[in-house]
Amino acid sequence: MSVVLAVDVGGTGLKGAVVDDRGRTLARRDRPTRLDGRGPADNLLALVADLTALAGAEEPVAVGVGTPGIVDEATGTVVYASNLGWRDVGLRALLEDATGLPVGVGHDARAAGRAEQLASGTHGSFVFVPIGTGIAAALVVEGTAVSGVSGAAGEFGHVVVHPGGEVCPCGQHGCVEAYAAGGAVVRRFRARGGEAASTAEVVALLGWDPRADEVWADAVRALALGLQGLTMLLDPAEIVLGGGVSGAGAVLLDPLGAELASLLTWRSPPPLRTARWGAQAGRVGAALLGFERAGVTPDFQLG
Amino acid sequence: MSVVLAVDVGGTGLKGAVVDDRGRTLARRDRPTRLDGRGPADNLLALVADLTALAGAEEPVAVGVGTPGIVDEATGTVVYASNLGWRDVGLRALLEDATGLPVGVGHDARAAGRAEQLASGTHGSFVFVPIGTGIAAALVVEGTAVSGVSGAAGEFGHVVVHPGGEVCPCGQHGCVEAYAAGGAVVRRFRARGGEAASTAEVVALLGWDPRADEVWADAVRALALGLQGLTMLLDPAEIVLGGGVSGAGAVLLDPLGAELASLLTWRSPPPLRTARWGAQAGRVGAALLGFERAGVTPDFQLG
Repeated sequence: MSVVLAVDVGGTGLKGAVVDDRGRTLARRDRPTRLDGRGPADNLLALVADLTALAGAEEPVAVGVGTPGIVDEATGTVVYASNLGWRDVGLRALLEDATGLPVGVGHDARAAGRAEQLASGTHGSFVFVPIGTGIAAALVVEGTAVSGVSGAAGEFGHVVVHPGGEVCPCGQHGCVEAYAAGGAVVRRFRARGGEAASTAEVVALLGWDPRADEVWADAVRALALGLQGLTMLLDPAEIVLGGGVSGAGAVLLDPLGAELASLLTWRSPPPLRTARWGAQAGRVGAALLGFERAGVTPDFQLG
Repeated sequence: MSVVLAVDVGGTGLKGAVVDDRGRTLARRDRPTRLDGRGPADNLLALVADLTALAGAEEPVAVGVGTPGIVDEATGTVVYASNLGWRDVGLRALLEDATGLPVGVGHDARAAGRAEQLASGTHGSFVFVPIGTGIAAALVVEGTAVSGVSGAAGEFGHVVVHPGGEVCPCGQHGCVEAYAAGGAVVRRFRARGGEAASTAEVVALLGWDPRADEVWADAVRALALGLQGLTMLLDPAEIVLGGGVSGAGAVLLDPLGAELASLLTWRSPPPLRTARWGAQAGRVGAALLGFERAGVTPDFQLG
């Protein structure tokens, strides 16, 4: 058995784990992305140090890090990540210096999508959409996650679905993410006078608080519009939702499936489901990047 | 030298040619898609008979047909094509019976995109968007045109960009095609009291007739919105426009490039150009399908 230290970098939290080559999480440790005035990179270094201690006698063979944004996987550099304030951050060099281990750095959603596929043996052409603080996508075409000419493919969260609509943290107007990401749901609920610290708290108010209903309906509508375009372009075998917001389950899937179907007149929508890895998808995706960097082929299994 | 009979099936016209394995058009014959009360399939058969006569002593090795819609390339069946009124039409069987030749049937845009790539040696990941009566796309990812799980990928024309907007011939509301296809431009210009038989006639009135300006601006806006999403999802090396409407040239490319750039705040738009094959792209794409069906590897060249 070999293990890696894995970190799924998000806009709100860093999700760390010690993961073995079967995809089992042996230990877990999270840390806020911003803490005590320290930025994401400092907190990432601190979390990796914690994970090294947690691994104990299991000597890790590598570190794997999944991050949002535009990632140059060949050099392990985050070219741009709006939710992290990163531009040209050489994460691999930083972490290799700190740990002395090989470090694999990749796009969070693409890595999680490949991990989902390894584990579930799903069809070679599907779409994995993690919805957390931000929203990304792994567009898997015949077994390969599309990375694009500059590593910027899969930015589903920044597809404009409401031209001239609400401003997105990325600076564009009317992006899917400006309505449907966890951060947007909370922000928009508060802007209407509501009180909630998380998407889960907004979801808990559905049917009770019309402001929650409105904000959630907008999120579902924005996702449906984005997925309509994605379905037209890629004709995926299925659409798999991951990330924290997908934890809402049927409250998300049911209206989203109905709304997507209503936007399509001459074809049926692709099947919609939540990730088999659930909230672990990001950590296991990061682990996959570590194993690959170490030259180890993991045998991920579910359950 | 070997030749094929090639037909690019469009919603308005059938574009036929005798094409050799260098991609040269030896003869050309077009025919309206609907003529004297006859439907697209009857006219296609009549055109192929004309092309056989035109080929003369050059014995064709195959027939190649590119069509819009959802195409099952393995069986040569058009599953659905809204602009043609086709559902489950077995084109290959029909034409093989009529000609005794092997017949390759494929998706027009995907075939034209591959022909464009063969001829221009462009980057392996690009997008080819033919804009004619309808609008499709070939999404080429690392040298392969994405076909999707049911052969329905690349339906760029039916991405919804104006939720609840104008009704599209496909029955959905607010599709790119409902504003930007040649058919839509003419229809919308006429609905404002203008008189024009073709997109070229509307384009000729730009700067003179405010109705033409309005309709054209809407077309450019719809294309830009669709291409914004496509850029976010696929990060293509370039966007290549083909089809009759792309013949507008700078009158299309300039405002479209500006509008697309204005929708993107944190990345530059992919380079935008018209097809190197120009208006021939569809015919050459259809020829490619014929050569492939005959087991011939063509050596397409420009000029």
